Parts: sequence; structure tokens; C-alpha cells
Amino acid sequence: MLPTLRWAEPPDGPALVLLDQTRLPGAEVELVCTEVPRLVEAIRALAVRGAPVLGLAGAYGVALAAARGDDVARAARSLSDARPTAVNLGYGVRRALDAYRAVGGGPAGASAALAEARALHREDAEASERMAAHGRELLSGLLPGRPHRLLTHCNTGALVSGGGGTALAVVRAVHESGELERLWVDETRPLLQGARLTAYEAAREGMPYSLLADGAAGSLLAAGQVDAVLIGADRIAADGSVANKVGSYPLAVLARHHGVPFVVVAPTTTVDLDTPDGGAIEIEQRPAHEVAELIPGVPVAPAGARVYNPAFDVTPAALVTAVVTERGVASPVTAPNIATVCSGSLPQTSRSGNGMMKA
Amino acid sequence: MLPTLRWAEPPDGPALVLLDQTRLPGAEVELVCTEVPRLVEAIRALAVRGAPVLGLAGAYGVALAAARGDDVARAARSLSDARPTAVNLGYGVRRALDAYRAVGGGPAGASAALAEARALHREDAEASERMAAHGRELLSGLLPGRPHRLLTHCNTGALVSGGGGTALAVVRAVHESGELERLWVDETRPLLQGARLTAYEAAREGMPYSLLADGAAGSLLAAGQVDAVLIGADRIAADGSVANKVGSYPLAVLARHHGVPFVVVAPTTTVDLDTPDGGAIEIEQRPAHEVAELIPGVPVAPAGARVYNPAFDVTPAALVTAVVTERGVASPVTAPNIATVCSGSLPQTSRSGNGMMKA
Repeated sequence: MLPTLRWAEPPDGPALVLLDQTRLPGAEVELVCTEVPRLVEAIRALAVRGAPVLGLAGAYGVALAAARGDDVARAARSLSDARPTAVNLGYGVRRALDAYRAVGGGPAGASAALAEARALHREDAEASERMAAHGRELLSGLLPGRPHRLLTHCNTGALVSGGGGTALAVVRAVHESGELERLWVDETRPLLQGARLTAYEAAREGMPYSLLADGAAGSLLAAGQVDAVLIGADRIAADGSVANKVGSYPLAVLARHHGVPFVVVAPTTTVDLDTPDGGAIEIEQRPAHEVAELIPGVPVAPAGARVYNPAFDVTPAALVTAVVTERGVASPVTAPNIATVCSGSLPQTSRSGNGMMKA
Repeated sequence: MLPTLRWAEPPDGPALVLLDQTRLPGAEVELVCTEVPRLVEAIRALAVRGAPVLGLAGAYGVALAAARGDDVARAARSLSDARPTAVNLGYGVRRALDAYRAVGGGPAGASAALAEARALHREDAEASERMAAHGRELLSGLLPGRPHRLLTHCNTGALVSGGGGTALAVVRAVHESGELERLWVDETRPLLQGARLTAYEAAREGMPYSLLADGAAGSLLAAGQVDAVLIGADRIAADGSVANKVGSYPLAVLARHHGVPFVVVAPTTTVDLDTPDGGAIEIEQRPAHEVAELIPGVPVAPAGARVYNPAFDVTPAALVTAVVTERGVASPVTAPNIATVCSGSLPQTSRSGNGMMKA
């Protein structure tokens, strides 16, 4: 697989080169962004999507603006504003911008911003490894003595990260240890990230997986065919509420109804302690055509149909069994809670600052 | 709108003419079935679908076989077996077959079968009117003093019935009395009967409606934007369990979680007292391509993806607030229960036999 995102030096660059996720699984096409407006457009169109990798895109975007000699502050604002819900985007932008400013901008600032983006990239890959290990250990404890049947929603694998991803990184670790009986993959309407991206990653890695319409998850849970639900997150509030791809909340309610663990896997950079609770999370509303057209230009609904198309929903902390981070496992309803896990009393990643703090 | 299904006499017939629902809303195309195998194929391909109208298709199918001088018993078997979950199909076939046999078959039997199919058609239209009235009254009682925001799944309107339908007939009655604030329409993956058919009917009738991906219903319920969930049914067991389009059960769990009424609207012909409980209902598994291809020939998932694609799921009686039938309203958890409502102590439709009995 082509890398999810990579930095290109001159003579081909400077540029941020993205694997265009809107073309998967049919074609692996790279999208070369040599200027920030093109990158912002790619973020909005979901050519690059997923909370952790949005942080990288934001950081490299600032480095790109700096390398070009653009107005870096303005570029940073446009990147931060490209999508509202994932906290990582603004976090990555801020880290690169702070590094740029710390050395007074200019060519030195450009080097510093790029170095910071690369540091974030490494941290992200390390965080994936740690989340995978923590998550696998958690599942072994929750589901002792037999292979796991896991259900996931949206895409949380190598495509969303500088490394192996979040929830799908845990699934991969379970698979590699021979403990994965089945991965149930929600297709994830409207944009079908489950069918297009998670099934693609699962197939490439030889996982035993089955695809299903989102509405079919209920009958699987009712039939006792799901041992745990694993999802990623786009933003976790200070009270442990989790914003994630629309359709996550119904799974949380179903999991609770059936006594099945509902596990969120996200780096601490996805935790935003400045957002007090789920009600304070801004939910992005996406265009009507994503639901009203099956493929671009092929309408499925009557012309002029009004569409309710939120990209995310919010799961209250009380429905979350555990949040797996690179620093350890938090439980919103027991201890340690997410603020404690983020506070640094547990092992930290390479950066001493609090990754989850909205910088 | 063209009629959902109509009988054509010679010289154009004998034939059963269907409005091809797989072509909606893009085109209104009639499908002329002059022989039973063609009709069976249309039923399997969902050109005609929805529990009540499947009963009519079965009855007219027997009349068609009889009019052609085919082996009527064999035709009846192939019709009954075309789809396994909706009890109405077998019920309609049996009624026409009994009428055919009661007069010794032959030309007299053909006339009798056709008369029986037409009687069932009239009964079905009457049942829609009564369900609409009972349902509207129920909602007025449950949601006093303000316009209703109703959420529905799949298609349960004029397209599924010889009359106005089931759940959507109730919505229409609410709309016509000026009490409908909004109809939330689940798109209903994988075959998008909500987007293609319910939105089409709602738009034609001027209802205020919004379309949404199935997974977005959770956030609507969490936001207090849904006053009641209304669905139809494909089979109701003796214990009140309801088999309906896949995705219905998650709505029932969500509705219970949020204290919102979950109302099932179905004629007593959909009740099968010979099926003791939900576990005894056979659930049709549909082909993988319905999920793995967005439109025929356009794959969305990796080649060879394994797919779990049940057409229906089962909601236990305990999650159902009420079942609205043409004979009155049953409550699985209070009184009268569904068997009592079906037993005939309440006002009956034109036929004295028990419509819900598996004949």
C-alpha cells in the first residue's frame, strides 16, 4: 500500500503527497498538494480523513506554507478551519506553528515546522503501537480464554494514522496473535469508509472479516455474535464523551443493551480537556448529496430531498467501557478517568507536553 | 402514481401488472407478468415488495396460473417459496388456492381464485384505512397537544399495499390532519427503500420530510427530535415479536433507551399465531452484491468480500409499545395482546375468518 501521507522534498516538492482515500479501494492514486488551498480542499473532500492523520496533515500543511514563504498564520487558520470536529487537526497545526514561531519564522521556521511535523508523525506511529498493545491486553482480560469476534465502524487503520491506526491497530494485534475469530465491518454510511477502507485493509492483511450494512449490527449483537465493539474517536471531551463517525452512538446503546464491551481507541491527542462535555462538541454537517446520491451524479432520492447528514455523533461516557490511549486505558465510569490518563501520571510518549491539551 | 399492482384482463392479459419498484424513483415502469415464473422472479428481485402487497401478488399469481390452465398447486408452491419471511405471501396464495379448489378447479376455479384475490385486495385497502385511523388516534393519545415528529424505516406506504399502506398510512393520516411536524426517513440500507420509495411517496404527498443515513437516527433520538418511531412488519409471532426490515431492531433499542414510543403498524394478516416466538421466524439472507456493490457492477468493497446481509431482524415484544392493526391496537406488554386483537373480539374486516391465522 502507498503511504497514507508523505512529505516530498525538492525537486518534486516541497509538497505533501496524500493517498487519495476517495478513490480506494478501486485505485491507489496519489494526490500531490504543492500549496495549502489544495490541501484544505483535500481535507474537506475527505481525500485524507481520520483524526490522527488530520493532525499530521495540519502540521505538514504549516510546514508547506512556511517552505513556500506563504502567510503562515493565514495558512494555519485555513487548515484549522477545514473541518470542525476532529481536535487533532487544530492540534497538529498549532504544534507546527509554535515551532515555526519559536525560531522567528523564515527559513529557520520552515525547517522547525517540518521537523515538528516529522516528530508528530513518529509520535503517532509509536502511539499506534502502544494503543495496539494496551488494547489487546484489555480485550484478553475482558474476553478470556477464546478467540474474539469484534465489530468496528468506519475506518481506523493505517489510513488514519502515521502508523497502524487506532481501533484497527488493536484488531490487527489481536489477529497477529491468532486471537481474531472474526472482524465484523460496518459499511458506515453515507461515505462507506467501512466497506471501502476497513475491508480493504482487512483483506490486505488476511483478517477473517465480514461486511454488513450498519443496520445489521443489531441482529448480530442480539444473536451473541459480537464479543466487543471497537471504534476510534474524533474528539473526546473532558467528561469522557466521545465524538466519532455517525452511527457509533447506536452501537454504544446496542452494546450496553446486550452487555457487550464498547471500547474506544484513540491517542491522547484526541482528548480535548477544554471541551467540558459532549454537548460542547461541534458536529460537522455534511452536504445532502452524500446521502441523496449513491455515486456522484446518480440520485437515489427524489430531487430536492432535504437531508440530515451529520458526520459524527456523541456517545456519553456512561456507555463507554474503556478508552484505550497510548498512555494506558481509561474508564469513564471507573478509574482512572480520561483526565488522569492524560495528566501524565502514566507512561508518556516522546513529547513531555500534554498531547491531549488543546494547545 | 401508477398502481402498485393491477390485474389485466384479455386481450392484454391475463396478466399481473406490477409497478417495478426497483426502478423508482427514477422511472415509473410497469412489469407485465403473464406467467408465474416471471412473477416469482419479480418477487425475488423485489420489483414488488412489502408484506401486504406480497399477499396480493401471491393471490393474483394463483389466479394467473389458474387462468392459464397451469399446474396450480405447483405454481402456488413456487409463489409461497419465493421469499421466506413475510407471512402474507403464503397467506394470499393459500386463500386463492382454497377458493380455486372449493369449486373443483378448472375455469370455475380460475374465476373463484381471481374473485378471492380481488376480495383480498379490497380488504387490504380497507385495512389500511382502519390502521391509519387507529394509529392516528394512538399517536394523539401518546403525544398530546403538539405536532408529531415521526421517524420511519423502510417503505410502508401505498407501494406495499392494495391501499394506503401500513406505518406510512398512519403518517399520511397525521399529515392530513395537520399534525405532522416532520417525517424522518431512514434511507434503509442496503436497498434504500427509505430513500427511493418512502421519500418518493412523502415528496408526492407534500409531507415535510428529511432523509438520513440509518446510523444518524441515534443522534436524532438523543437530541429529542423524534416523538415516535413507526415501522411496518413482515411477520409478527404469537408472542408479539416483530420481524421487519433489518435496522428496525436497533431503532427499537434506541427508542427504549430514550423513552420514545416504538409503534408497529401491520394488518392482522401479518400476525402468524403458528410462529410461537421471534426465534422461530426464518430470516431471509440476501445476496452479497446488495452490500458490496453500490449500484449493479460498481463494487464498493474489495473483490471477494464476505458479506452478512440479512433482510430482516426481530424485535422482541418487550421493546414494542403498540401494534396497530385494522382491528384495533394491541400492546405486547399490556392488554390486549396481539392474540386477543386477532381473536375477533374486536371489530373485524369483511372476512370472518381469522386473517392472521396461517391457513
